[in-house]
Amino acid sequence: MAQVEKKLADLGIVLPTPAAPIANYVGFVRTGSLLFVSGQICLGPDGKLVAKGKLGSTVSVEDGQKAARACAINLLAQVKAALGDLDKVVRVVRLGGFINSEPTFLDGPKVMNGASDLMVEALADKG
Amino acid sequence: MAQVEKKLADLGIVLPTPAAPIANYVGFVRTGSLLFVSGQICLGPDGKLVAKGKLGSTVSVEDGQKAARACAINLLAQVKAALGDLDKVVRVVRLGGFINSEPTFLDGPKVMNGASDLMVEALADKG
Amino acid sequence: MAQVEKKLADLGIVLPTPAAPIANYVGFVRTGSLLFVSGQICLGPDGKLVAKGKLGSTVSVEDGQKAARACAINLLAQVKAALGDLDKVVRVVRLGGFINSEPTFLDGPKVMNGASDLMVEALADKG
Repeated sequence: MAQVEKKLADLGIVLPTPAAPIANYVGFVRTGSLLFVSGQICLGPDGKLVAKGKLGSTVSVEDGQKAARACAINLLAQVKAALGDLDKVVRVVRLGGFINSEPTFLDGPKVMNGASDLMVEALADKG
Repeated sequence: MAQVEKKLADLGIVLPTPAAPIANYVGFVRTGSLLFVSGQICLGPDGKLVAKGKLGSTVSVEDGQKAARACAINLLAQVKAALGDLDKVVRVVRLGGFINSEPTFLDGPKVMNGASDLMVEALADKG
Repeated sequence: MAQVEKKLADLGIVLPTPAAPIANYVGFVRTGSLLFVSGQICLGPDGKLVAKGKLGSTVSVEDGQKAARACAINLLAQVKAALGDLDKVVRVVRLGGFINSEPTFLDGPKVMNGASDLMVEALADKG
């Protein structure tokens, strides 16, 4: 088994089937050595949203981090579909995210870190 | 006439003069085989905003889609200015958009699709 | 002294030590001839936020521009850490920004221009 997927398995993570696009776009585009992956939502292994609502009121920072982690897992599923093997990833170049939050919410970076942490757990220095 | 522009003409679309930047930046930058186009606003053929206000209250999803489509047309006008010929486009790599909406509005992807659809209509598999 | 840093010195700007990431990510990633720099916040030379609050209510457009300029200076500090010498910059390809504002605030481009102007002052045609 490939190294990165072995690490994911050790973390108890099974990559889902990549989510079908919800509109008229594709899941990923490769150009040269760059792979652009479309935005992913926080669907969990059961196909339901991991969190729903707004940070700063109905969603806690901890649940927001779990949602960000779910998005990151879904990103990796797209990357696997694109490359065939996650061990081919040389580097995560840019990880972007949008967080549904109240106007007064300031802990976006903490929430986003749920996705960053997963990438580092899975890809180590390449994450 | 070039293929893509012929298709646009069939759709009744005339590419406008690319909008002048509204601040201290340029309309596009090419680096290697990548072309980055600056954000475009929803000016229509008459030079007026196609929609003004917020999705989820004063602007309907349908009007939001028309506005997104107008932004996409303005993007293509920049691409033509950059490349001379839209047939040179190999692939739309990433199409991003920001939507002015109420905090409770959840149909962003539907609105954004107004831009994606135009790209696919104009560029087919390359869109 | 390198040209770009000389220009910055003429503007009275001393590049700070690049800000340490506030979460689990790195300050920049280079891939081929592209350098991606992580988002920077508006810390000033004294290590305090240049502006805090929302455009459209507690922060004026002028103060927002100063904050954007501070972010741009912090971006250049990351670029220097990445490249060693700002004269190696061939081109600013894409400058993105997020502005904390009231829902009714419409002068985002004016605020963002605080960052664009700094890039043009420092890098001239390459900015």
